[in-house]
Amino acid sequence: MKRQIGQQTLLFENRPYVIGSAGIVSKSESEGPLAESFDRIEPDDTFGQDSFEKAERTLYLETIRLACQKSGLQPKKLSALLGGDLLNQLITSNYAARELGVPYLGLYGACSTMSESLLLGSVLVDAGFRSPVACVACSHFSTAERQYRYPLEMGTTAPPTAQRTVTGAGCVLLADRADSDSRYSHIRISSATIGTVIDLGINDIANMGAAMAPAACDTIQKHLKDMNRKSSDYDRIVTGDLGTLGSELLCKLCSQNGISLSNVHMDCGASIYSPEQGYNCGGSGCGCSAVVLTGHLLPQLESGALKRILFLATGALMSPTSCQQGESIPGIAHAVVLEHAEGGEA
Amino acid sequence: MKRQIGQQTLLFENRPYVIGSAGIVSKSESEGPLAESFDRIEPDDTFGQDSFEKAERTLYLETIRLACQKSGLQPKKLSALLGGDLLNQLITSNYAARELGVPYLGLYGACSTMSESLLLGSVLVDAGFRSPVACVACSHFSTAERQYRYPLEMGTTAPPTAQRTVTGAGCVLLADRADSDSRYSHIRISSATIGTVIDLGINDIANMGAAMAPAACDTIQKHLKDMNRKSSDYDRIVTGDLGTLGSELLCKLCSQNGISLSNVHMDCGASIYSPEQGYNCGGSGCGCSAVVLTGHLLPQLESGALKRILFLATGALMSPTSCQQGESIPGIAHAVVLEHAEGGEA
Repeated sequence: MKRQIGQQTLLFENRPYVIGSAGIVSKSESEGPLAESFDRIEPDDTFGQDSFEKAERTLYLETIRLACQKSGLQPKKLSALLGGDLLNQLITSNYAARELGVPYLGLYGACSTMSESLLLGSVLVDAGFRSPVACVACSHFSTAERQYRYPLEMGTTAPPTAQRTVTGAGCVLLADRADSDSRYSHIRISSATIGTVIDLGINDIANMGAAMAPAACDTIQKHLKDMNRKSSDYDRIVTGDLGTLGSELLCKLCSQNGISLSNVHMDCGASIYSPEQGYNCGGSGCGCSAVVLTGHLLPQLESGALKRILFLATGALMSPTSCQQGESIPGIAHAVVLEHAEGGEA
Repeated sequence: MKRQIGQQTLLFENRPYVIGSAGIVSKSESEGPLAESFDRIEPDDTFGQDSFEKAERTLYLETIRLACQKSGLQPKKLSALLGGDLLNQLITSNYAARELGVPYLGLYGACSTMSESLLLGSVLVDAGFRSPVACVACSHFSTAERQYRYPLEMGTTAPPTAQRTVTGAGCVLLADRADSDSRYSHIRISSATIGTVIDLGINDIANMGAAMAPAACDTIQKHLKDMNRKSSDYDRIVTGDLGTLGSELLCKLCSQNGISLSNVHMDCGASIYSPEQGYNCGGSGCGCSAVVLTGHLLPQLESGALKRILFLATGALMSPTSCQQGESIPGIAHAVVLEHAEGGEA
């Protein structure tokens, strides 16, 4: 049983199945180029609640319920829920978990949460500890804005390097087998690489793409080395929310390290909005990569249009307090390999 | 390979070894009954830093380094670091991980973090994904007080149900084998139970013991059922930081459910300070159970004075924002079984 590969990579010998997913977004996301791909669009970003925090929790919960419903699974049958969000003390995730009443593990990886939850969910399923499990990440523009930046009422102008926090949640269901009720039966997770924290000294909190790009580069490098692969062994290398500027930096950094990302790189943050929407460098937030994965990428993996992707959600690990104390912004990226698999049933 | 037992329990067939540990505390903890047991006492709670947040980070980092040093392990050789703290965005843990440069997974379980990290660390080691790994939890009175309650300068009086956040960090090193350099070679982790979020409607943030007791009771019940055991099959059932009042409630709740905890229950929060110190219901914070585990319990497991314990760190999953919005306090408890094992080398 050789599951530890190289420096940072885990090999999933039983290759957990993606059996279902859901992604829910709000108005801004419905006006972007990926609008068609989302499972549900809720134009009212309060989700019928009297606070944005409760709205975010509703979004999180409904996304899990929708993923289960689409896969013919009772939410109560979830053998574990692994998830997180951006709010202090993970209140979105914690209170949603209270409603579901299933075994719950709270994760904090900032915007890297979607790949952290997929990585740990795959570990639990691959080794026979749990199945099925739900892996979730969620963010909301209005809660993030007031917690991390300024009161919404101030109407602050965003600088050109800024990104807009995506209002969205994505949930991926993993299991040790596919069955006929599963929405998906041709997507499997074959390996993953745990990220290390990398900090090159960026301290501009309106330029998170630059802060996270080095971490993404580091994980890509280590993953390729551990797996003895080239970037061209992937149909897509997908980063979470580097945005347009961060993506440029990533390609440059990788190129300096002998890795070509041209033709293969895609960034969820740079893809979710159109330039006309005026959101500067694109989308961010842990919901960003979660909804692009569930809406845009998984269907292509199921159909075989994509054969193998490396999915790296990227996180900026600072807090308003650490920045006020003069700290720079550390980044992290965890990577998960999703593959199209012929056959279906295990 | 049957690793999923009952509703919520994981069986570790390879029973990961605890190969080392460290616990560092500050002045208040050094004046309590467990003072002798801690690896290091740092009377200056700034740890030589210019902010309490940086102090906490130093505490976290030095605890990991001390655990490694005591076990003859280079920190760079850690194959994964799983940890968390109580600060917004886990800045203690994230910035400490930046210094270490090892694969890192950030966890948020409030004061349940020590057992959450032991549970996931055991999963990684048991299934051959990673070894050795470090599992860490840390809290600091002065950072927690100002983030969760009032500015220290106000000198607010604590109500009788309150507990004092422990300034302390604990680190446990797990590996797939014991070797002669290991500090410990007779402690193994045999199973664990993932908690569910339980909320009976307590909304007094100065009474967290009462908020967490139902979650502890729920996990104990499910663990015993899943493992087909009685409470007397354990030398100790150890809860994290219910404090004196929460402990009473737990014993009552368990008794109502047919589980007797008399002679077997111990609460870290109720044990770390003496009543003369005037900290009301005792200690709290995720560092509390972490230092009592590493200082007080592990040596007894190594010697065989304790044969088998159920360790449940307990977490209150609210935030100041959720409480201000009228929410009650959800609790969670994850359980890990640590056993004295004859033999030593695998």
